[in-house]
Amino acid sequence: MIDPVFLDTPLYRCEALEPRLGCTVSIKLETANPVRSFKARGTEVVASLLADHGPRAVVCASAGNLGQALAWSGRSRGLEVTVVASRFASAAKLDRIRALEAGLELVDGDFEMARERAVAVARHEGIRLVEDSLDIETCEGAATIGLELVDRAPSFDTVLIALGGGALATGVGHVVKALAPEVEVVCIQPLGAPAMTHSWRRRSVVTTDSTDTIADGVAGRRPIPAVLDDLLLVADDAVLVEEASIIAGMRMLLDHAGLVVEPSAALGIAAILENRDRFAGRHVATVVCGSNVDVDAYRRWVNTPFTSRP
Amino acid sequence: MIDPVFLDTPLYRCEALEPRLGCTVSIKLETANPVRSFKARGTEVVASLLADHGPRAVVCASAGNLGQALAWSGRSRGLEVTVVASRFASAAKLDRIRALEAGLELVDGDFEMARERAVAVARHEGIRLVEDSLDIETCEGAATIGLELVDRAPSFDTVLIALGGGALATGVGHVVKALAPEVEVVCIQPLGAPAMTHSWRRRSVVTTDSTDTIADGVAGRRPIPAVLDDLLLVADDAVLVEEASIIAGMRMLLDHAGLVVEPSAALGIAAILENRDRFAGRHVATVVCGSNVDVDAYRRWVNTPFTSRP
Repeated sequence: MIDPVFLDTPLYRCEALEPRLGCTVSIKLETANPVRSFKARGTEVVASLLADHGPRAVVCASAGNLGQALAWSGRSRGLEVTVVASRFASAAKLDRIRALEAGLELVDGDFEMARERAVAVARHEGIRLVEDSLDIETCEGAATIGLELVDRAPSFDTVLIALGGGALATGVGHVVKALAPEVEVVCIQPLGAPAMTHSWRRRSVVTTDSTDTIADGVAGRRPIPAVLDDLLLVADDAVLVEEASIIAGMRMLLDHAGLVVEPSAALGIAAILENRDRFAGRHVATVVCGSNVDVDAYRRWVNTPFTSRP
Repeated sequence: MIDPVFLDTPLYRCEALEPRLGCTVSIKLETANPVRSFKARGTEVVASLLADHGPRAVVCASAGNLGQALAWSGRSRGLEVTVVASRFASAAKLDRIRALEAGLELVDGDFEMARERAVAVARHEGIRLVEDSLDIETCEGAATIGLELVDRAPSFDTVLIALGGGALATGVGHVVKALAPEVEVVCIQPLGAPAMTHSWRRRSVVTTDSTDTIADGVAGRRPIPAVLDDLLLVADDAVLVEEASIIAGMRMLLDHAGLVVEPSAALGIAAILENRDRFAGRHVATVVCGSNVDVDAYRRWVNTPFTSRP
């Protein structure tokens, strides 16, 4: 169901990072594809099923990456795609959604407001609502990353996964725990968007009133109960990291790995930076899940301060 | 013979570049691996053969990428690797060669001086000399890129290939001309290092006294006659591009494709920028052959001038 362009992505050790992080680091790179994030693995499954059997129109809420991926997957299958996003979403992501010929509706609020609006659009138009992380196809798509990780490198001690709505964490986590249970699954969220991590720790849904992070791809406030249930089954830990660590991670990946990444994709490196003792000497794999950045913001993040570059 | 980590690299359309270039653009990405360039495809073949049958010590001259790749391939096979390079070579590349535990000898001259010194070292020590582009294994390794291009995308009109010593151009070119002869093979060199292009045009070796380009990976002055002979069989054209176009290409790949590339890897985009009419409406594949940049130089290239960013 999934176009091969999104599969069998690079997985390699990045030794240039290792002296700076104190552990063995492998990168699973999900950015070298037409939508520059892992999200198309899931939208390819969604769109394939719809193209075969379902309605021809579909709507989703998105911080930007899911919308871009659904637009790509839908376009090639003749589906009519509508994306609802916050008007504060990454301009680069919104531009790509428009360029891929999807309808784009902006709401005057955050991602959770976009989710509410997408539900209303689906109901009003009678079209299919795709709910990231809740719809199992989005998790199954992400899970193929887990299959590739387990297949190629059973020697990892730990897999670091960005935690947002939960599709990536539950998808990859499920496969890892089923096929390589000795590998630790650690989810990472920004301190500025901690709802799912707090929920995981308390084993029941915790919401927050706002978010405050540059990691737009994981900035949710209202965890989905069913996704939390799944996360409780597969995550060994959930940790929170500071904004400064996310920026340091982005800069380190640029300077020493030659990789442009969006903030969410630097969460794994940020977690190592904040927990050096915990990961010392271990072999850690981190999923670099997206590279869709606003160019000017990215330059600001990675260029200053030059002097304190790790 | 070749570690799978270097094979089946991403090949994907990059639509965000297309409005700016006026043609369909596919990227073959050779940077998401442990040495951040395509060169290990060749050194894996070299090192495998040596590990099986040959001497245990080997020397090469390198602008940096071949040396890094040979160091990587040799280390995992217990070979003793010596790299001879110019003391003006990219500091990042030299650092990586040292980090990979190869012996590194610097000469007070350019790449051609390093080549002479490597010949002398091989003779004096009685060890194997690896000559990039002349030794057929280096071309065969590069040729596997051609196999992946032809296999995955027979719809290309043109393949754009950086031209330095010639291993990449002759290797990929040979496969493309054998298996997809209708696809045009265009080689690109900087105006500041035009020896092989001038040689191709005159059909006999032309040398230059110096080079003047930021594209360190392709800055040779003395084409190898046997490599020119091969290039004459497979290249449909060889074009020269200005430094400003190389920088514009690097910036465009950063801003619109999220890719860090070294100057040599931007030659294909530079060629499109300088020949828009020629490529208009065509489907062009360009091999992004390396991403090993000195961080400070890279920042300088892509950050200024902000205002004239394409």
